[in-house]
Amino acid sequence: MRICRVSWDDDLHYGVIEGEAVALLTSHPFGAFEPDGRVLALEDVRLVAPVLPSKVIAVGKNYLDHVREMGGDAPPTEPMIFLKPSTSVIGPGDAIYLPWQSEQVEHEAEIAVVIGRLCRDVPEDLVDDVVLGYTCANDVTARDLQRTDGQWGRAKGFDSFCPLGPWIETDVDIDDAAVECRVNGEVRQSAVGADMVRSPRELVSWISSVMTLLPGDVILTGTPAGVSPLRAGDEVSVTIGGIGTLTNAVMDRG
Amino acid sequence: MRICRVSWDDDLHYGVIEGEAVALLTSHPFGAFEPDGRVLALEDVRLVAPVLPSKVIAVGKNYLDHVREMGGDAPPTEPMIFLKPSTSVIGPGDAIYLPWQSEQVEHEAEIAVVIGRLCRDVPEDLVDDVVLGYTCANDVTARDLQRTDGQWGRAKGFDSFCPLGPWIETDVDIDDAAVECRVNGEVRQSAVGADMVRSPRELVSWISSVMTLLPGDVILTGTPAGVSPLRAGDEVSVTIGGIGTLTNAVMDRG
Repeated sequence: MRICRVSWDDDLHYGVIEGEAVALLTSHPFGAFEPDGRVLALEDVRLVAPVLPSKVIAVGKNYLDHVREMGGDAPPTEPMIFLKPSTSVIGPGDAIYLPWQSEQVEHEAEIAVVIGRLCRDVPEDLVDDVVLGYTCANDVTARDLQRTDGQWGRAKGFDSFCPLGPWIETDVDIDDAAVECRVNGEVRQSAVGADMVRSPRELVSWISSVMTLLPGDVILTGTPAGVSPLRAGDEVSVTIGGIGTLTNAVMDRG
Repeated sequence: MRICRVSWDDDLHYGVIEGEAVALLTSHPFGAFEPDGRVLALEDVRLVAPVLPSKVIAVGKNYLDHVREMGGDAPPTEPMIFLKPSTSVIGPGDAIYLPWQSEQVEHEAEIAVVIGRLCRDVPEDLVDDVVLGYTCANDVTARDLQRTDGQWGRAKGFDSFCPLGPWIETDVDIDDAAVECRVNGEVRQSAVGADMVRSPRELVSWISSVMTLLPGDVILTGTPAGVSPLRAGDEVSVTIGGIGTLTNAVMDRG
């Protein structure tokens, strides 16, 4: 099932995508929900970020080839996590704005897990019960500031630095899922989910032993090698096999 | 004015404290609000965290003596920021739980700024217009994990690691405000607001050049020297002159 959030008739609605149509839901997708009877053509609505998370937890150094391109030799012995602010979230088609503080803003294509239920201390074999589904993410990063700041709150926290979408896919085989990033159509990052050092299931379990997860919270599972700079005028796309493609334009902040 | 949030009659209400009484408000304190006519005795209500922030932005290394006790010699050339999850927020009287993952959980007394208005790119001389007020915070930290993890998402992100309260004081002279932390009555940290490397005004302006701030967002302005371990059974208090005292018990996670 593909769950989306759409702007239509001056309001935001959750919906389920069926082919070229969207069936609007009576409610949010985190509890019992059903179609409210209205079905719209996909082309008549605007997709927005499929969820507005109370927190975005991101995992660093989860693909060995990316660890190496950053100058390391092995992944950390424990997952390395940091947070991105909810104000950094944008949706498909929204612009990534390059801040004046950085000379080197880069894309990072990632598989994002969307949490479906309030949970804490979830054993790995029960993680599927608390996950609503998966979407595409771009963990946009000011690489120069990441290098100099020590903590990554600024380098990864600018407004528009967390594109999510285009929708939440509830059924996807993560191990087999291709993870790709294209800039102006040219492939920059290419991997499969199985390349991750720790699977989404391991990560959700581990993170839930630290902090309570709420419905709509998002976990970014790390990026493979191939990160590269974005410039004003670029179009950057993250494609996850079995989910879809998240495309954003890149603009200077006016 | 002292703005609080209280649990009373099975519901949460914002209120204004006047002596030993609380005048409940018609609404939240981020727009036009007025007393709704109900006045309760302070002893008949339970104070909860005065705000539930969409994000908590914390500033590292903002007191020179703390930078030195951590082994550094100078504050960073730019503010160093990181985020704490909203799930780490607790109120006055709530327990700080020691997680099994850490052997060294420490207190960090801090002045917290509470944002009152949606804002972005706020010049320093206009910061007062976007600040609702100030409260006490404890940036509880698993020091051992902070040392080993690289990024501080885990070490500072456990549930209960962000006590806030007891209320928001709208009128306080931060430069003159004493910042103290006591464990079981014994003073561990003692400084004044003027000891900060960067003032709250500078920090709010700088952070707002990175990310949009929303009503209720909280900025923790760093901790002075004297951080020390907490053990189960301890009582830890953060006192900010002109604001009040935030007290929390420390317990093992059951």
